[in-house]
Amino acid sequence: MISRDKHDRMANAIRFLSMDAVEKANSGHPGLPMGAADIATVLFTRFMSQDPKNPHWPDRDRFVLSAGHGSMLLYSLLYLLGYEDVTIDEIKNFRQLGACTAGHPEFGHAAGIETTTGPLGQGLANSVGMALAERILNARFGDDLVDHYTYVLAGDGCLMEGISQEALTLAGHLKLNKLIVLFDDNQISIDGAISLTDSTDQCARFAASGWNTMRADGHDPEAIAAAITAARESDKPTLIAFRTTIGFGAPTKSGTAKVHGSPLGKEEIAGARKALGWTAEPFVVPSDILDDWRLAGLRSTKERKAWEERLAGADAEMRGEFERRMRGDLPENFDAAIVEYKEKLAAEPPKVATRKSSEMALEVINACLPETIGGSADLTGSNNTRTSQTGPISAKDYSGRYVHYGIREHAMAAAMNGMTLHGGIIPYGGTFLTFSDYARPAMRLASLMRIRSIFVMTHDSIGLGEDGPTHQPVEHLAALRAIPNHYVFRPADAVETAECWQVAIASRETPSTLALSRQNLAPVRTAHEEDNLCARGAYELASSDDDAEVTLFATGSEVEIAVAAKALLDKAGHPARVVSVPCFELFEEQTADYRKAVIGNAPVRVAIEAGIRQGWDAIIGSDGVFIGMTGFGASAPAPALYQHFGITAEAAAGAAQKRLAKQA
Amino acid sequence: MISRDKHDRMANAIRFLSMDAVEKANSGHPGLPMGAADIATVLFTRFMSQDPKNPHWPDRDRFVLSAGHGSMLLYSLLYLLGYEDVTIDEIKNFRQLGACTAGHPEFGHAAGIETTTGPLGQGLANSVGMALAERILNARFGDDLVDHYTYVLAGDGCLMEGISQEALTLAGHLKLNKLIVLFDDNQISIDGAISLTDSTDQCARFAASGWNTMRADGHDPEAIAAAITAARESDKPTLIAFRTTIGFGAPTKSGTAKVHGSPLGKEEIAGARKALGWTAEPFVVPSDILDDWRLAGLRSTKERKAWEERLAGADAEMRGEFERRMRGDLPENFDAAIVEYKEKLAAEPPKVATRKSSEMALEVINACLPETIGGSADLTGSNNTRTSQTGPISAKDYSGRYVHYGIREHAMAAAMNGMTLHGGIIPYGGTFLTFSDYARPAMRLASLMRIRSIFVMTHDSIGLGEDGPTHQPVEHLAALRAIPNHYVFRPADAVETAECWQVAIASRETPSTLALSRQNLAPVRTAHEEDNLCARGAYELASSDDDAEVTLFATGSEVEIAVAAKALLDKAGHPARVVSVPCFELFEEQTADYRKAVIGNAPVRVAIEAGIRQGWDAIIGSDGVFIGMTGFGASAPAPALYQHFGITAEAAAGAAQKRLAKQA
Repeated sequence: MISRDKHDRMANAIRFLSMDAVEKANSGHPGLPMGAADIATVLFTRFMSQDPKNPHWPDRDRFVLSAGHGSMLLYSLLYLLGYEDVTIDEIKNFRQLGACTAGHPEFGHAAGIETTTGPLGQGLANSVGMALAERILNARFGDDLVDHYTYVLAGDGCLMEGISQEALTLAGHLKLNKLIVLFDDNQISIDGAISLTDSTDQCARFAASGWNTMRADGHDPEAIAAAITAARESDKPTLIAFRTTIGFGAPTKSGTAKVHGSPLGKEEIAGARKALGWTAEPFVVPSDILDDWRLAGLRSTKERKAWEERLAGADAEMRGEFERRMRGDLPENFDAAIVEYKEKLAAEPPKVATRKSSEMALEVINACLPETIGGSADLTGSNNTRTSQTGPISAKDYSGRYVHYGIREHAMAAAMNGMTLHGGIIPYGGTFLTFSDYARPAMRLASLMRIRSIFVMTHDSIGLGEDGPTHQPVEHLAALRAIPNHYVFRPADAVETAECWQVAIASRETPSTLALSRQNLAPVRTAHEEDNLCARGAYELASSDDDAEVTLFATGSEVEIAVAAKALLDKAGHPARVVSVPCFELFEEQTADYRKAVIGNAPVRVAIEAGIRQGWDAIIGSDGVFIGMTGFGASAPAPALYQHFGITAEAAAGAAQKRLAKQA
Repeated sequence: MISRDKHDRMANAIRFLSMDAVEKANSGHPGLPMGAADIATVLFTRFMSQDPKNPHWPDRDRFVLSAGHGSMLLYSLLYLLGYEDVTIDEIKNFRQLGACTAGHPEFGHAAGIETTTGPLGQGLANSVGMALAERILNARFGDDLVDHYTYVLAGDGCLMEGISQEALTLAGHLKLNKLIVLFDDNQISIDGAISLTDSTDQCARFAASGWNTMRADGHDPEAIAAAITAARESDKPTLIAFRTTIGFGAPTKSGTAKVHGSPLGKEEIAGARKALGWTAEPFVVPSDILDDWRLAGLRSTKERKAWEERLAGADAEMRGEFERRMRGDLPENFDAAIVEYKEKLAAEPPKVATRKSSEMALEVINACLPETIGGSADLTGSNNTRTSQTGPISAKDYSGRYVHYGIREHAMAAAMNGMTLHGGIIPYGGTFLTFSDYARPAMRLASLMRIRSIFVMTHDSIGLGEDGPTHQPVEHLAALRAIPNHYVFRPADAVETAECWQVAIASRETPSTLALSRQNLAPVRTAHEEDNLCARGAYELASSDDDAEVTLFATGSEVEIAVAAKALLDKAGHPARVVSVPCFELFEEQTADYRKAVIGNAPVRVAIEAGIRQGWDAIIGSDGVFIGMTGFGASAPAPALYQHFGITAEAAAGAAQKRLAKQA
């Protein structure tokens, strides 16, 4: 039992480390760490199962600081608890180049940072994915190996963002009762009092979607503990609205927006020291307090050891599988399964949409990889994301492998990130490519975090036809290719789709988007190749008999147009070759020699893609010929649109000939 | 009073037009029009103030079909009511190239389509903007001129999207009591029953944010009318959850997901004809029913005439101002005010961040244009979007000019679109550029709709410093430039910022994003020019004395780096010129001669921008030198980051010299 005095001093250690670090950096957010210090102290000293010396222990509780601007709260905790990455020097280097203590918590910078937060609402939605992953893995591996809580600290900002609604309704529906949201209900945002912008009763709102809700004083340790205890016993996810004072302890600024996002200043900090009775120098934690914190860091050691014993005693096959999945390794037979599948495709090349090819590839992948968890944002039949192996996951049965995410693209992507971060799962989820815009903030974070989330984006061009320009991606390939560390695949047929899926599954540090056609496509890869040609990003699909005068580059549904254009050009006496470009990013990663060879020396380069030109100049040059879109699409049957916008073999061949004539 | 039998037949006219059109197009969504036909019939025959012969009457009620996939509901209504654009031939041409009856309703295609919908939740959030615009204009022009309702038909999809939460909490907070949401509560989505994906009590959810809520039978005309009557009398916005049967009338498919998004098929339609007692041929509406609908179309003629009389009788100045604002024309003194302001800037060039320059420009604009309504997604002090003229808008007082949107980027952008669409307002709203991702689906729709919404996006690069890569846009300039019909401005100093604002305000058919720096920038335009140089997208900022060997292109905060690099190159004996590129899209619109002259003939072209290269090749060529980012940023003070990522005058000059040596 921690005395009130001891609790206060332990909480104040967080407060002063945070104040001091922000002051030294001359930048940062002291308000949240000071306001939420009591909640965090109770959580970490009495409830969290974790082990700073074994920070990746799979069955640890997860803590997500969704209000990521309060990063000093997390860094202070990690330092105090004894996580080795976060030394006092790193605290002093808060927000400096190369420090693991970045402005907002960044996954991968230090053990104990479970996800990258800062863009509001993301952490909350990640947590839904983590809590779901826990239940899914529990259903497979049992209570002995998987049985932990996910705690989220969220502020008003997180709860005002739309993604929070998608996340909470999903969690409520799936009854993720081991998810506990600690709401730092300080009634202040950047512009001022929350009453300036919102009148929502958050507890009523969460209750409307099946949550257990409570209110408690966020500065009373026993009230905090009682609330968390009750939350852990609920059969629903819990929101605890903790009434707190932002910047607690700051004599003149606490309780106001002034304390949110700027250093307090020397005088105010001096006042806080006085008010809270803190006499230690900046960055110094009195040794008795540090000892108590370090002791708290050890509180789950026994639990962790017992878990390890249970794992050691588990059925060898189950143990091996659990360990493989938590490492993120693929089963040994995976590559062979894909090759075997490609052989079948070559033998009988199907003329199907790539969204269908994707389903066929997933049928192979899901048979081979029990860790894939599929899903769709209410477009299952359109995205073709469900296979014979993937029964639905529901509140009554987590043993399925398919999440009906509902019409919640943003939370889907963020929850997928949470599952990936949790470990043991490779999630993929679908929507229409145009609605990648709805999911984009989470997709970006997958890239920044370097994690394996796989986005299945169908209906990838005007080729979707009648639904019209609201649903026709035009700029989305370019916009997604713009995100660093994100593979954007646009396969041309069933073989390429299988290859792109293979790379996506194998890419542990890069998320992937597969852009897939609604319309049927002619097969272009009809001879079997064991090698994954798509893994190089671009490759020569069809060579020319004589020296090529034209190289036609294309992706996805336009590759068959390029092949047809080549036939026209060949016939007209202008030998042409075709290069398929399923992934710009992988092509960029190749050697200069390979790139040069694939791009070739033909005097005319033509790119064909039913999207905008942006990005293509890197391949065809700024003087290359581009056959594609220059504006939004239109509502009409797909063939009419391809004609209308001039994305045809005739147009491509004609433009190439015109250019050849001009250059002659 | 319309008899029940008459009501049923009028509603069935909608149902059969919808079924027939979808069948003929062999594509589309019959389920919603059939399910919501009763609600729509009651609304349009008993409540809506509108005039098909004067469809742009400013004080008409607005109807938004947020569930835009049910477009045939709207097209049927417009045809039946007598809107001239939507003829029976257009109904027959549903979803065909060139028809105004696109797959999803598109603003500008036909009078009576108040906004483009389809991407779910957008219409609902547009409506919040429309209802807010109504209150704002009412506060200025009084009940005599502005006093109308905004009705929205929304489905489960709209309500599951996160944007709906942002929109409804904003509306509830602002007590937009003339906003009435008709929820087509059919309990079905594409994947199946809503119970598969959600357990939310929507009424409880809306009530938690200050809404009036009701439930009613969506197939009982009197219950529908009673609910709408009660809603109109509420002092809060109202949600009416109408329990309906999707595909009402389809004998075997109604009430299931099968009726949502595919043609019913001949047999099912025949069954529906039988079940509903409809004997007319496809696309034929019995003349008595058509007459009744046309009569309903005339029901507000008297009201419209009375309104016109009130307008004619109003104070001449007020009338003139009202009419000017509703036309979207600018006051005559606007351009002169900007020129005068630019003169002042030239006399005393300020060294400020462009976010500050933007505030200074807005101070001039807001003084001149009473129709601007500012706002920010809880970053007022960072976005610098508030000026001396813009007092807050609140539920108690709509006479202000500033919306505290809260942490709701997506609803902000969509509500801005709604205000623009309503007319009489030019909205601008701010957030950080990186969070344009959160607002992107609405920003895209502004572009597609060709409307004047202005997005103020500050903290536009690694130059924001310590907040780190989550907050540092790297790909966002490229990603926004990728959207067709969207001006992305990145001004370099106070003069350019004023010029970019001038273009944005004057661009009636193109939305704009202003990307603005957090950090202070040295003035680069110190001599006064009456012409708006930024209006041409790019221009020569600094020429070379001798033939230029190097042209340095740059935008925003990197223009001063380009100027410094020019000095280094000049000094090293390599004459260089500097081209500022505040807007790619405007530069693309210029004549080939102008573009050629600005790009120039210098053998080496260098672009400097603290973002990714994508898009720049069009200006510098794919062999041009690019100084910028290749991946995500980092958390550190801005100067350290510019050094770390090599975005400096030295790096630019060095790279240019290296390239010159190589080419020599």
